Amino acid sequence: MDVLESTISAIQHDPELGKCKFRVSNKWVGANHNCTTVTGFYGAKQEIAHRQPFELHADEPPILAGEDQGANPVEHLLNALAACLTTSMVDHAAVRGIHIEELESEIEGDIDLQGFLGLSKEVPKGFTDIRVKIKVKADVDNMERLKKLAEYSPVYNNPFSLSDL
Amino acid sequence: MDVLESTISAIQHDPELGKCKFRVSNKWVGANHNCTTVTGFYGAKQEIAHRQPFELHADEPPILAGEDQGANPVEHLLNALAACLTTSMVDHAAVRGIHIEELESEIEGDIDLQGFLGLSKEVPKGFTDIRVKIKVKADVDNMERLKKLAEYSPVYNNPFSLSDL
Repeated sequence: MDVLESTISAIQHDPELGKCKFRVSNKWVGANHNCTTVTGFYGAKQEIAHRQPFELHADEPPILAGEDQGANPVEHLLNALAACLTTSMVDHAAVRGIHIEELESEIEGDIDLQGFLGLSKEVPKGFTDIRVKIKVKADVDNMERLKKLAEYSPVYNNPFSLSDL
Repeated sequence: MDVLESTISAIQHDPELGKCKFRVSNKWVGANHNCTTVTGFYGAKQEIAHRQPFELHADEPPILAGEDQGANPVEHLLNALAACLTTSMVDHAAVRGIHIEELESEIEGDIDLQGFLGLSKEVPKGFTDIRVKIKVKADVDNMERLKKLAEYSPVYNNPFSLSDL
C-alpha cells in the first residue's frame, strides 16, 4: 500500500516515471511446446531485473497435437486477463480504502478452431466471447464500486495494436 | 503431425468438433500476488482434463508494490502472444510441409502507468504499441510465407469482446 501510494505520487509529479516497456523472449522447444522467459523490464526511467527469471511453458493437450506440458496459448491469454482483473481490483480498492477479504474469478472463452485452422474465412480466429465471473468477499455496499474498478485493467483494455509483425 | 492432420480432417467433416471452451480460475493470494489454475477444457464435443493442472502465478516487482513471485499480468499477456505466434507458425508450417529448424521471438510492449492508475484520461490503460521480432532458422525461400502464417494466431487476432464483466 505505502509503495503503491508513493508510486502514484511520484508519477503524478513526474509522468515520465510511469512509462514502462515490458518484454518476453520465447523459444520453440519442439512440436507444440514452447517456453517464454521473462527477466526484466524498463520503468521509472531505468532497466529493472526481476528477482529471478520466470519461465512459462505453453503446449497443447494430446487431442490438439501436444503433450500437455503447459497451458495452451489461449489459456495463457485468459490467465493474463484473470490476473490483471484481480490486480486491478485489489490495487484500486486499496487506494480507495475499500477492504477486500477474498477474491476469486472464473473466465471461460469460446473459440471455434475452424478459424485458427483456416477452414473457414467467416469464423474468427480468436475468442468470439469471453465470460467473466468474479466472486468477492467484501462489504456489500461496495460491490458496484468494486466491479467498476476491474475496468482499469490494462489487459482488459487491450485491443492489440501491434506493429512490426 | 498425424494428430494435427486427423484433427483438421475431422473438423472439416464435422465442424461441431472444432468448437472449444477454454477456462481458467484465479484466486487472490495477497497484495499483488494471485494464482490461476487451468484444469481442463471443452472440445471435440466433450469435457477434457489436462494431464495435470497448471498453476500460473502473477505478481508485481517491488517497485510496483509486489514481491516478484511471478511475471506480472501484462507480461503474461505478452507471453500468451509469443506462445501463440510460435504455435501458429509451427503448426501451419507443418501442414504445408515447410521445415523449421529453430524459432525464437522477442516481444516488447509499451505501457504508460498513468492510464492504469487513473491519473490521466487521455492515456490508454493497455499497451500503446507492441513490437514483435521473430528469428527463424528455415529455408530462406520460405521466410515471407512463414511470416504470413503467424497471422493465424488466435491471440494475435483477439480484440477482446468480453461479456458479463
